[in-house]
Amino acid sequence: MLNRVRSAVAHLVSSGGAPPPRSKSPDLPNTTSALPAAPPEAPRSPPARAGSGSAVPVKTAEARASFSRPTFLQLSPGGLRRADDHSGRAVQSPPDTGRRLPWSTGYAEVINAGKSRHNEDQACCEVVYVEGRRSVSGVPREPSRGQGLCFYYWGLFDGHAGGGAAEMASRLLHRHIREQLKDLVEILQDPSPPPLCLPSTPEAPTSSDSSHLVAPQSCWSSHKEVTHESLVVGAIENAFQLMDEQMARERRGHQVEGGCCALVVVYLLGKIYVANAGDSRAIIVRNGEIIPMSREFTPETERQRLQLLGFLKPELLGGEFTHLEFPRRVQSKELGQRMLYRDQNMTGWAYKKIELEDLRFPLVCGEGKKARVMATIGVTRGLGDHNLKVCSSTLPIKPFLSCFPEVQVYDLTQYEHCPDDVLVLGTDGLWDVTSDCEVHSSGPSSGPGGPGHPPGPWLASPQQQAGFRG
Amino acid sequence: MLNRVRSAVAHLVSSGGAPPPRSKSPDLPNTTSALPAAPPEAPRSPPARAGSGSAVPVKTAEARASFSRPTFLQLSPGGLRRADDHSGRAVQSPPDTGRRLPWSTGYAEVINAGKSRHNEDQACCEVVYVEGRRSVSGVPREPSRGQGLCFYYWGLFDGHAGGGAAEMASRLLHRHIREQLKDLVEILQDPSPPPLCLPSTPEAPTSSDSSHLVAPQSCWSSHKEVTHESLVVGAIENAFQLMDEQMARERRGHQVEGGCCALVVVYLLGKIYVANAGDSRAIIVRNGEIIPMSREFTPETERQRLQLLGFLKPELLGGEFTHLEFPRRVQSKELGQRMLYRDQNMTGWAYKKIELEDLRFPLVCGEGKKARVMATIGVTRGLGDHNLKVCSSTLPIKPFLSCFPEVQVYDLTQYEHCPDDVLVLGTDGLWDVTSDCEVHSSGPSSGPGGPGHPPGPWLASPQQQAGFRG
Repeated sequence: MLNRVRSAVAHLVSSGGAPPPRSKSPDLPNTTSALPAAPPEAPRSPPARAGSGSAVPVKTAEARASFSRPTFLQLSPGGLRRADDHSGRAVQSPPDTGRRLPWSTGYAEVINAGKSRHNEDQACCEVVYVEGRRSVSGVPREPSRGQGLCFYYWGLFDGHAGGGAAEMASRLLHRHIREQLKDLVEILQDPSPPPLCLPSTPEAPTSSDSSHLVAPQSCWSSHKEVTHESLVVGAIENAFQLMDEQMARERRGHQVEGGCCALVVVYLLGKIYVANAGDSRAIIVRNGEIIPMSREFTPETERQRLQLLGFLKPELLGGEFTHLEFPRRVQSKELGQRMLYRDQNMTGWAYKKIELEDLRFPLVCGEGKKARVMATIGVTRGLGDHNLKVCSSTLPIKPFLSCFPEVQVYDLTQYEHCPDDVLVLGTDGLWDVTSDCEVHSSGPSSGPGGPGHPPGPWLASPQQQAGFRG
Repeated sequence: MLNRVRSAVAHLVSSGGAPPPRSKSPDLPNTTSALPAAPPEAPRSPPARAGSGSAVPVKTAEARASFSRPTFLQLSPGGLRRADDHSGRAVQSPPDTGRRLPWSTGYAEVINAGKSRHNEDQACCEVVYVEGRRSVSGVPREPSRGQGLCFYYWGLFDGHAGGGAAEMASRLLHRHIREQLKDLVEILQDPSPPPLCLPSTPEAPTSSDSSHLVAPQSCWSSHKEVTHESLVVGAIENAFQLMDEQMARERRGHQVEGGCCALVVVYLLGKIYVANAGDSRAIIVRNGEIIPMSREFTPETERQRLQLLGFLKPELLGGEFTHLEFPRRVQSKELGQRMLYRDQNMTGWAYKKIELEDLRFPLVCGEGKKARVMATIGVTRGLGDHNLKVCSSTLPIKPFLSCFPEVQVYDLTQYEHCPDDVLVLGTDGLWDVTSDCEVHSSGPSSGPGGPGHPPGPWLASPQQQAGFRG
C-alpha cells in the first residue's frame, strides 16, 4: 500500500526558467520539468496578501532573498550557494546516502520574488522513533527498540515577522509529538480499547488486562468510547500547545521572533494525520480525485470565534476595537444612521443604528487576503506571536490567535492508491496562485517525477511575507 | 417551478393502525396511507431520549395525551375531539375553504405513546405579507399592498418542560421575522447591491440611487459585498433573538413555561431559508437524492462551544461543574491517577492527572441521546428556558443555551424538481426512529399524497418528552 504513495523533490524557480535536468535516484527522483513555477507576482506584497494580478518588478540578484534550505536536503555549502543563485536556481535533491526520506518526499520552493533577504519559512521531514515511557500499568519499561513506535513526519512552517518561530517549530514540534506519544506506545499497539484511567504509581498492578483500571460507573450508564485514533489526535493537539508554550517561555533567551503557521503530517500505524494551524493547505490526490485534508484559518473563516472572544472578554479589545463587524469603516459623521453589521452570532447582515462605540476599529476587518485581526495579522492560528502587538499600541493580539490545529485523519488502509497519487502540502503562497486542480494536473504529468515516474508528496513552500498591515 | 414542490397533510397515528381514507381536495390531499407510523416505542421516555428499543406498554385512552392541533388544520371542536380519540386517530385535513396552505403543506403527528397529557409541541404554517416600513431613503411609504413582500412560513417547535414557549413561538416568531423584513422590502426588490448605510431621518434625500448613501472609504480599499440573501438570513437570526428576549420579558405575565427547539422555513423571492435552533431536522428530497438542510445542536455537537464558554466565564459553572470532559465520571478515589479528558480546544483525547477540581460534575456529559448540559438538558439551542436551573440548584443553564439558529439557504430557481420532491421537517422524535432514506422512500410511495399524487413538505412532529434528566 505504502509504496503506492511516492514522492519527489523539486525546487521551483520563481524566474520562470526551467531548471536543468539532474541525475536521478530511485527514491528521490529529480525534476526535469518542475511544477509550473508560480508567476513572479504570485507572492503578494504586504499588507495586501491577495493576488492583485499586478506584476512585481524583477530586482537584481543581489537584492533578492537568500535561501535557508531545509536541512533534509543535506546541502553542502557549495550547494547552498548554488541554490542561492537566482539567475538559475537549481533543483536540489539530497544525496542518496542511505538516509532516505520517507515516501521519497519532495520539496519545492519559490522565493518571495526577491522582496526579502531571508526566507522566514521552514520545512522538515523526519522519521521519528518513539520509545515507550512506561507500560500501561505504570511500570517503567525496559528500553527495547523493538517495542516502540515509528512515525513519519512532515512539517511546513510559514513564518511571519521573523524566522525564529518557524525555525524553532521545525526543530522541535515533532519532538513534542514524540513526547506526547510516549505514554501511548503500548496502548496504540493493543487492539483493545484504550483504558480510560491509568494508575499513577509504578507500584500498581502490572497485568496486561487493563479492565481493572476502569473504575465502576457512577453517573453514566455507559462510558464514552475512545478510539486509538483520537488518542493520536489528542497527542498532536497537545504537542502544538506545548510547542507554543515553550516559545512563550524561551522567546527572549532564544530570540524566537514572530510566529508561524504550522501544517504537519504524521503517518502512524497506517493512518495519515494532517494537523493544520494557519492558512496553509494539504490535499491528497487519489486517482485523479482531490481530497481536501485541511481548512484554512483566517480572520474571515474564524470571524465568529474571534468576535465571541472579544464579546466575552471586552478587556482584550482595550477600548480601541469593537467586536462588531461592518462592511466598511464607520465614520463619525454617520452617527445615528443605520449601517449593516454582524455580531458573533450572525452569519447574515442586518442594519443597526450607529452609536459612538461603533466608531472603534473593528476586531475583524477587510476581506480575502486583506482580512485582518485588529488591523494587524491575516492568519488566526499558528505558533509563536507572543510579542505581537497592535500597531502603535501595547495591546497584545495573541489571545485571539489560537495555537490549536484542526486534525484530519486519512486511513491509508481503506483506499486503493495508484502510482500518480500524491499528498501535497503548501503554504498560502502556493494556493493563492494555484488551484487544487492545477496542482493535481501539473503533478503527475509534468511534476518532479518526470514522465514515467510517479510523483508523490510535495512540500511546496513559496515564502510569503509576514501578514502584517503597515 | 413552485408547483413542482407539493405537499400533503397527514396525521400519523401512534397506534399503528392505518387511518381511514378521507375526502380529497386538490391542494390538501388526504392520506390513504400515511407515512409509516413510528412504533409506539419511538418517542423515548425521559431522561433517556435515545431509542432504547424497548416497547412502551399501551395505556388506556384516558391516560393518553390530549392533542392541541395546529391551528392551520382549522379543526372544529368536534374534529378536535375526534382527533383526540386514541383508539382510531384520524388523519386531519383543513377544510378547503379557500384559505389554502402554501404548497399543500402536510402535517403528521405521533403523540408521545400516551405518556403525557399534553403535547408540548407546536407547528404552524402561514402566508405572511410584509408591508414596507419606509423607503430606503427613509421617507415613510404610502400603504400600498402591491409594493410589499410575501413569504411562506412553516414552523416546528419542539417544546420541553412545558408548552408555553412552543405556543408563544408558534404565534409570534413569524411576526418577528416580518418586523425584521419590513425595512428590507424595497432593498430586496431592487437588484442592485444593498446600501451599506441608511440615513436615519425622513428628511434625507429620496433618490432611488442609493450610491450616495455609501460614505467614502476610510480604511479599507474596498467594502465587503453584502448580498440580498444575507440580509434575509440576518433578519431571521435577529428575529430568533428578539423572540427569545420577548419570552424572557413576558414569561411571568404570560406563563411562558419551558423552552422549545425551533425549526422554521421561510420561502421568499425564490429561495428557501431553513433556520434551525435545536435538534429538529429538515431535509429536501430532490429526484430521490436527500439534501440535508439543517444540523442538529446537541451537547455533543456543541461541546467545544459550551466548554469554551465555561472556560472563559468560569462563574457560570458555579464551582459545581468543570468545563473538561471525561469519558465517564471521575471518582474521588482516582485522585492522582491519569484519566482521559478533552478541553474546549481538543477533538482528540489525552490523559491528565486527576486533580481535585476534576471531581466536579462535567459541564457536558453522556453521549448520544443521553448527552446533557449540566446534567439537565439534552439540546443546546432553542427559545425560552429562561427559568431553567440545574437540578436542585439555583444555577441558571440559559447562558449555555443559544437562541441563534443556523440558517441554510436553498435556491429553488437553481434546480429542476420532479413531482415526488418534498421538503420534510421533523422533530428529533421522528429522526431517532426514521432515517433520512426511510422518510424519503416512504414519502413518495406511501405518503400522504397517495398513489399518483405527489407528496410535498411534511411537518412531522412526534412529541418528545422534555429533555430533562431526573
